Amino acid sequence: MAPPTRKQVVVSVNPKKKPWEQKLPLHNRWHPKIPSVATVKTGQVFRIDMVDWTGGAIKDDNSATDVKHIDLSTVHYLSGPIRVVDEEGIPAKAGDLLAVEICDLGPLPGEEWGFTAIFDRENGGGFLTDHFPCATKAIWYFEGIYAYSPHIPGVRFPGLTHPGIIGTAPSMELLNIWNERERELEENGLKSLKLCEVLHSRPLANLPSTKGCLLGKIPEGSEEWEKIANEAARTIPGRENGGNCDIKNLSRGSKIYLPVFVEGANFSTGDMHFSQGDGEVSFCGAIEMSGFLELKCDIIRGGMKEYLTPMGPTPLHVNPIFEIGPVEPRFSEWLVFEGISVDESGRQHYLDASVAYKRAVLNAIDYLSKFGYTKEQVYLLLSCCPCEGRISGIVDAPNAVATLAIPTAIFDQDIRPKRNKLPVGPRVVRNPNIPSCSYDGNLPITKNPGATGS
Amino acid sequence: MAPPTRKQVVVSVNPKKKPWEQKLPLHNRWHPKIPSVATVKTGQVFRIDMVDWTGGAIKDDNSATDVKHIDLSTVHYLSGPIRVVDEEGIPAKAGDLLAVEICDLGPLPGEEWGFTAIFDRENGGGFLTDHFPCATKAIWYFEGIYAYSPHIPGVRFPGLTHPGIIGTAPSMELLNIWNERERELEENGLKSLKLCEVLHSRPLANLPSTKGCLLGKIPEGSEEWEKIANEAARTIPGRENGGNCDIKNLSRGSKIYLPVFVEGANFSTGDMHFSQGDGEVSFCGAIEMSGFLELKCDIIRGGMKEYLTPMGPTPLHVNPIFEIGPVEPRFSEWLVFEGISVDESGRQHYLDASVAYKRAVLNAIDYLSKFGYTKEQVYLLLSCCPCEGRISGIVDAPNAVATLAIPTAIFDQDIRPKRNKLPVGPRVVRNPNIPSCSYDGNLPITKNPGATGS
Amino acid sequence: MAPPTRKQVVVSVNPKKKPWEQKLPLHNRWHPKIPSVATVKTGQVFRIDMVDWTGGAIKDDNSATDVKHIDLSTVHYLSGPIRVVDEEGIPAKAGDLLAVEICDLGPLPGEEWGFTAIFDRENGGGFLTDHFPCATKAIWYFEGIYAYSPHIPGVRFPGLTHPGIIGTAPSMELLNIWNERERELEENGLKSLKLCEVLHSRPLANLPSTKGCLLGKIPEGSEEWEKIANEAARTIPGRENGGNCDIKNLSRGSKIYLPVFVEGANFSTGDMHFSQGDGEVSFCGAIEMSGFLELKCDIIRGGMKEYLTPMGPTPLHVNPIFEIGPVEPRFSEWLVFEGISVDESGRQHYLDASVAYKRAVLNAIDYLSKFGYTKEQVYLLLSCCPCEGRISGIVDAPNAVATLAIPTAIFDQDIRPKRNKLPVGPRVVRNPNIPSCSYDGNLPITKNPGATGS
Amino acid sequence: MAPPTRKQVVVSVNPKKKPWEQKLPLHNRWHPKIPSVATVKTGQVFRIDMVDWTGGAIKDDNSATDVKHIDLSTVHYLSGPIRVVDEEGIPAKAGDLLAVEICDLGPLPGEEWGFTAIFDRENGGGFLTDHFPCATKAIWYFEGIYAYSPHIPGVRFPGLTHPGIIGTAPSMELLNIWNERERELEENGLKSLKLCEVLHSRPLANLPSTKGCLLGKIPEGSEEWEKIANEAARTIPGRENGGNCDIKNLSRGSKIYLPVFVEGANFSTGDMHFSQGDGEVSFCGAIEMSGFLELKCDIIRGGMKEYLTPMGPTPLHVNPIFEIGPVEPRFSEWLVFEGISVDESGRQHYLDASVAYKRAVLNAIDYLSKFGYTKEQVYLLLSCCPCEGRISGIVDAPNAVATLAIPTAIFDQDIRPKRNKLPVGPRVVRNPNIPSCSYDGNLPITKNPGATGS
Repeated sequence: MAPPTRKQVVVSVNPKKKPWEQKLPLHNRWHPKIPSVATVKTGQVFRIDMVDWTGGAIKDDNSATDVKHIDLSTVHYLSGPIRVVDEEGIPAKAGDLLAVEICDLGPLPGEEWGFTAIFDRENGGGFLTDHFPCATKAIWYFEGIYAYSPHIPGVRFPGLTHPGIIGTAPSMELLNIWNERERELEENGLKSLKLCEVLHSRPLANLPSTKGCLLGKIPEGSEEWEKIANEAARTIPGRENGGNCDIKNLSRGSKIYLPVFVEGANFSTGDMHFSQGDGEVSFCGAIEMSGFLELKCDIIRGGMKEYLTPMGPTPLHVNPIFEIGPVEPRFSEWLVFEGISVDESGRQHYLDASVAYKRAVLNAIDYLSKFGYTKEQVYLLLSCCPCEGRISGIVDAPNAVATLAIPTAIFDQDIRPKRNKLPVGPRVVRNPNIPSCSYDGNLPITKNPGATGS
Repeated sequence: MAPPTRKQVVVSVNPKKKPWEQKLPLHNRWHPKIPSVATVKTGQVFRIDMVDWTGGAIKDDNSATDVKHIDLSTVHYLSGPIRVVDEEGIPAKAGDLLAVEICDLGPLPGEEWGFTAIFDRENGGGFLTDHFPCATKAIWYFEGIYAYSPHIPGVRFPGLTHPGIIGTAPSMELLNIWNERERELEENGLKSLKLCEVLHSRPLANLPSTKGCLLGKIPEGSEEWEKIANEAARTIPGRENGGNCDIKNLSRGSKIYLPVFVEGANFSTGDMHFSQGDGEVSFCGAIEMSGFLELKCDIIRGGMKEYLTPMGPTPLHVNPIFEIGPVEPRFSEWLVFEGISVDESGRQHYLDASVAYKRAVLNAIDYLSKFGYTKEQVYLLLSCCPCEGRISGIVDAPNAVATLAIPTAIFDQDIRPKRNKLPVGPRVVRNPNIPSCSYDGNLPITKNPGATGS
Repeated sequence: MAPPTRKQVVVSVNPKKKPWEQKLPLHNRWHPKIPSVATVKTGQVFRIDMVDWTGGAIKDDNSATDVKHIDLSTVHYLSGPIRVVDEEGIPAKAGDLLAVEICDLGPLPGEEWGFTAIFDRENGGGFLTDHFPCATKAIWYFEGIYAYSPHIPGVRFPGLTHPGIIGTAPSMELLNIWNERERELEENGLKSLKLCEVLHSRPLANLPSTKGCLLGKIPEGSEEWEKIANEAARTIPGRENGGNCDIKNLSRGSKIYLPVFVEGANFSTGDMHFSQGDGEVSFCGAIEMSGFLELKCDIIRGGMKEYLTPMGPTPLHVNPIFEIGPVEPRFSEWLVFEGISVDESGRQHYLDASVAYKRAVLNAIDYLSKFGYTKEQVYLLLSCCPCEGRISGIVDAPNAVATLAIPTAIFDQDIRPKRNKLPVGPRVVRNPNIPSCSYDGNLPITKNPGATGS
Repeated sequence: MAPPTRKQVVVSVNPKKKPWEQKLPLHNRWHPKIPSVATVKTGQVFRIDMVDWTGGAIKDDNSATDVKHIDLSTVHYLSGPIRVVDEEGIPAKAGDLLAVEICDLGPLPGEEWGFTAIFDRENGGGFLTDHFPCATKAIWYFEGIYAYSPHIPGVRFPGLTHPGIIGTAPSMELLNIWNERERELEENGLKSLKLCEVLHSRPLANLPSTKGCLLGKIPEGSEEWEKIANEAARTIPGRENGGNCDIKNLSRGSKIYLPVFVEGANFSTGDMHFSQGDGEVSFCGAIEMSGFLELKCDIIRGGMKEYLTPMGPTPLHVNPIFEIGPVEPRFSEWLVFEGISVDESGRQHYLDASVAYKRAVLNAIDYLSKFGYTKEQVYLLLSCCPCEGRISGIVDAPNAVATLAIPTAIFDQDIRPKRNKLPVGPRVVRNPNIPSCSYDGNLPITKNPGATGS
């Protein structure tokens, strides 16, 4: 009896090779014209390997120089596109829903390590870039389901491993919508946007650019490549097709219902995270790694109309739906930090959940730094440990209330407030890997440096 | 042997009486001069009763007329202030942390019901007021730990019951900070704030007002009352003292670490919720009820300096910390809706978690309305059921990603997407309690109507 | 709008009064002729109070004299019987299933305490009576959902509160089956039973006895009373009607499907436990208390035939079914002790789960006594804390494997094995309440003393 | 920077080869003289592969003929022994505790399938062999973390994967104790044991036998082999050294504290289970598979004396301790079946948890067979799905109460009792793989056929 589910490897990668040297070509843009590299049938269990989101640019060492000078025009390297057909061989069609079940996932054998990094404020930045402008990184090693870091001693936790990116190919019409609205923001954003004063120095959007562009089977430099590269969307933000949604609970046993915009669905995936905290606050914030997914697809014919409701001017303004299953690490006790929408200067914002969450994260960083850690260590930790970021209250004008909940069991000391004074933390390991940092205490308020990669 | 923990009722209320007729007077403002009504010792288990946040203004009936015309200048009615002393009788002092453990809580005996309401857009509004401008309400009945509503059939869920408000009295200095920053927003907010275009018609802030003011033992109309009423902060937003943080997980077994700003700590509590969803989106969005708390206090001397870090120009810019315990209803399977920071008009916002969450909630409402519910019913349900609102990604410019996760077990039908067409839902119960609604399909874009109560 | 679920108190008790002085009479035997004291309708939420199983015989003090001399002929005092009718007033009938949902439960207001006791080996005994022959007790105080004991310092845990007993009235035919099979055991057990050498000195069964008998509305001493008392089954063991099943997870949100043997179902309940460990090993092993239940009934007509399968010579040999809901305290980490079916003398038993479990419990007691506790304290603790007793392997001849899992979070110290030597436990509180104990180290092997109460 | 935890494969197996053809020899007996095949250091993460417990005797097909005629003298094939030394190279010593952490585990790549079987009552039998005497089997296929079976349609569940066997080598003294006590049972058991009337036809013990014996590096047929084979203990039962404890929760993140009896600890492991129910009732009851473990060891010097307490005539009568971590599939709703210690003939047993559990399992089988399954299918299912077998009450003479709790989410239909009649189950798939069965309805009561393999 042939076991019907024996899984098939449809994309394999060699993590020792460069992204552009892989047998099946990778890509780092969204565009309907990027050809699929494999076809799978519904009901079939198959495996996809992927490189880490930087394609090996960050090394397993003690220096953050690689982080500081990373070329962000090349991320994220994705595996795919994968074309999906049903049992009769009929491909998914625009208007269908593609249901993707994550049967299993993990690091690649022999590559049981990952990294978490803070980007330099002039090259990527992050949610707290005005507080932490200098590039740094932490290396994590995996002991099966657990991760620990020599750079952040005293913590060890099980991974809620997930792909940061999974998405279908956009149609040309959807792609145009993306490019238009993001260009509008890029051009007009600074004069109107309040939040920019808070998160001042990061690019507002990441518009198409030929620099760093990799388009799978399309030969680089060809006329077709040139045309597509100038149109194709960057993979940084999540959008209607799913993409970089960074939902940390999309782990084993989850199901993802993706809208289908082109024949075959042509979904791609990448950006594997051994673990991530809600918000992925340091930007390169998960425990980033290469890895594999075991997937099983189903097609719900006509499912977009049946289950999704457009939320905008066209029928394409939809979002995926997700199902979370019973197989997550569970924690019984949480320490929770709160933030309200008053920023660090004392200024009141109106029901702004981003400001509130920023404040919650800052509160948590300050608190945990009392237990023997540097603030950079905690910022890295909160980016990647299984902490939960919640919008607790969004209606009590003028303060949004956001919370950050941290499972206490990940620490090897009791981090709860206590009556008696804290013991002096024995675990201060000065993070060894900060390269020479050009920022002094008086952080310069820089202008928007423009889109990365431009 | 005298059981040392026999609990003592320090505040009792009669839910049949008006807020101003209670034996121990209630209050609905924050001010250091509101006298404490009782003193408790650390280590002692004691009980506080509270009226619902409207003090009985909303009735257990089928009409939303009470909701439509509610006087919001009078909310929230709080029990307290409670003065806390240690075992030697020495009161909590400014700079201490007050640890409040919630030993138990619940509805008042004989009052096993609650309400969830949508406010009229001209009188309170809510997170989705531009989509749902008409007042409506749902009544919930409790069967022990479970709630169900005749207005939203087919759902039943256990309560994660919690007080929406618990906070210490502010010092005069802190109060001044609040009033100043909120006045600044009220006066200058409209011209600068982006989000106002989305959430256009709600008041930006709720400044002090004598109208509706209740100040506990301070006789109404006295000179002192007049002075305090003109200074005292409204209870709508959560702030540095805790207050209306609406954190839905602060249930049995939780601990709240509140900063102490005045001698005795003088904490107050109210706004009991039988259950609430993250965000409490419809504003009167929890299952609002009268109820009781059983509490136990501890004082961590000097704890503010030890554990909290000011995040602003003065040492007072702090936030409380919370501990969540092992006693929550747990759900194994969740259906998750995603939103990105592109609004309903298709406009791109920059890493705005509020816009992303709004979109996630709208997606969930549309989806669930396919199962036999009106959208108003779902809006009410998502405000009060134990759903989780997460900030999943806050760094991938320009799209923040927010998610709303709904436990599937609260429904009596399978709400997951499926291959075969949905059965026609038999449960459409046209919500009977919408009063005549003056809004038509073309919602008027109103100017900011000013602070409630003014 | 009249809230349809406003609960009604159908049985109230006064814990200050004796069991036989309560307004609605209690009973402590199973018999079809005990008249119902109240009638409830399906769908109605109602409340039943109950005294503790001893009816107040054990006091909140430091002496175990009351435990040592307790009259076990009078237990358990039950509230009921309750007659159940459907919405049309038609009573439950033999052959139906009675579904009882536990909507809520807890201690009686003002009675927030309980006790756990070890019985003297000549008066009740317990699972480990050959190791712990002396009467002792621990008093527990409740702080809302938490319990702690001055007699067992350093532990505090949330209660998984439940009724030890809930059962329907047996038919005369079923009662006869019980009496016959238990008499057979009582008469012939000693010569054939292996386990008796292990658990040697406890009564084999507890046959009907007029001594201590309480029969509700049947006047004591009447002819009818005399007849019924001589037939009525003791409440000690669980049987086909449910009864003393001591399933610790039957807490809030659970449902119990009881077979109906007589018209009206006539169910009774009692023996409230604030908390219990699997096995309730010390016999008076839960945290015993008075308390209340809020219940809602449903009748599944013909449900016995539909859902239950007789497992014996008559259609009456059935067992109830239970549903456990999502509202339990959850623990993330457990320390597990194992036992195999080799007894303390080194003798091999054949797949005997009772022997294996005994060994697991003894292992746990010895282990925990290394952390500053006396063995009596641990025996009491394991009887009442939320520990799980599992049959892990029952097929690998000759060793059954049983396990006892203890949640580590209930202790205020880390009880896991560690590389470095244990700190000397500071918490040895010599249990103060052991009355003079007549047993020396060489425990006398006594003959079966006969049924308690005879 | 060399990642210190890069795991090393210390035992690899080829599942296509016979157990005796593997590169590193396997063994199927416990004896101190079986030489270790590899050495590991504490702190090192390493990997051990293992064949399934039968070494490939059961095939992935539709016939149970292989099950019926299996040679049970050869089980279980174990990988090891593994010698453990500390960081300085000093081996574990008798009296130490060996802490083994399970960092990860799973099926072997390409071998994503397993089997569950009922043994013929004359060749192995099982817990319910008197009810299910005929050999049968179900094949399971794995889709990542999920398993499903074509032989038991309508169920799918995540695996709580674990090794059924992990144990240290016994000392000669301990081995002698085992052999003596099991021989005593084998010789004298039938006349004294009550339970044998219930579980009548299975071997009482499995004494040493040269037949089928495999001793690792010891050449078969040599003088040494002959001597050891006649002394070495069978691996069927769990004992003081751990061994076949079949604790279903020993999955990812668990820690096992094993007593050390010989220098180097020399632990072995095998009998991988993709999933198992408590009790593993059908004997070949888990989802049996080949697989791998990733482990990390620690040595607690002198830990036996520090943490274990001998429970018998010698210091060797101890049991391992286990720690269970936060990474298990979790289920919110359970259907629970109860059994009491009255057997199927209606006979009363005294506090016999084995009889009670048998009754609970039989009740569950009968119940679930109402949903379209054959009883054999349910018996197989309850052996291997993540159901929990509890000792609920062990003190209420004469009835022990045992429960079997089944997570309702593993079924694709609602299996709870309901008011309305059951729909006719569409899923009756007559189990196709029962070979000709020589048992008729009147099951012959056979005498004890003696030890397997003799």
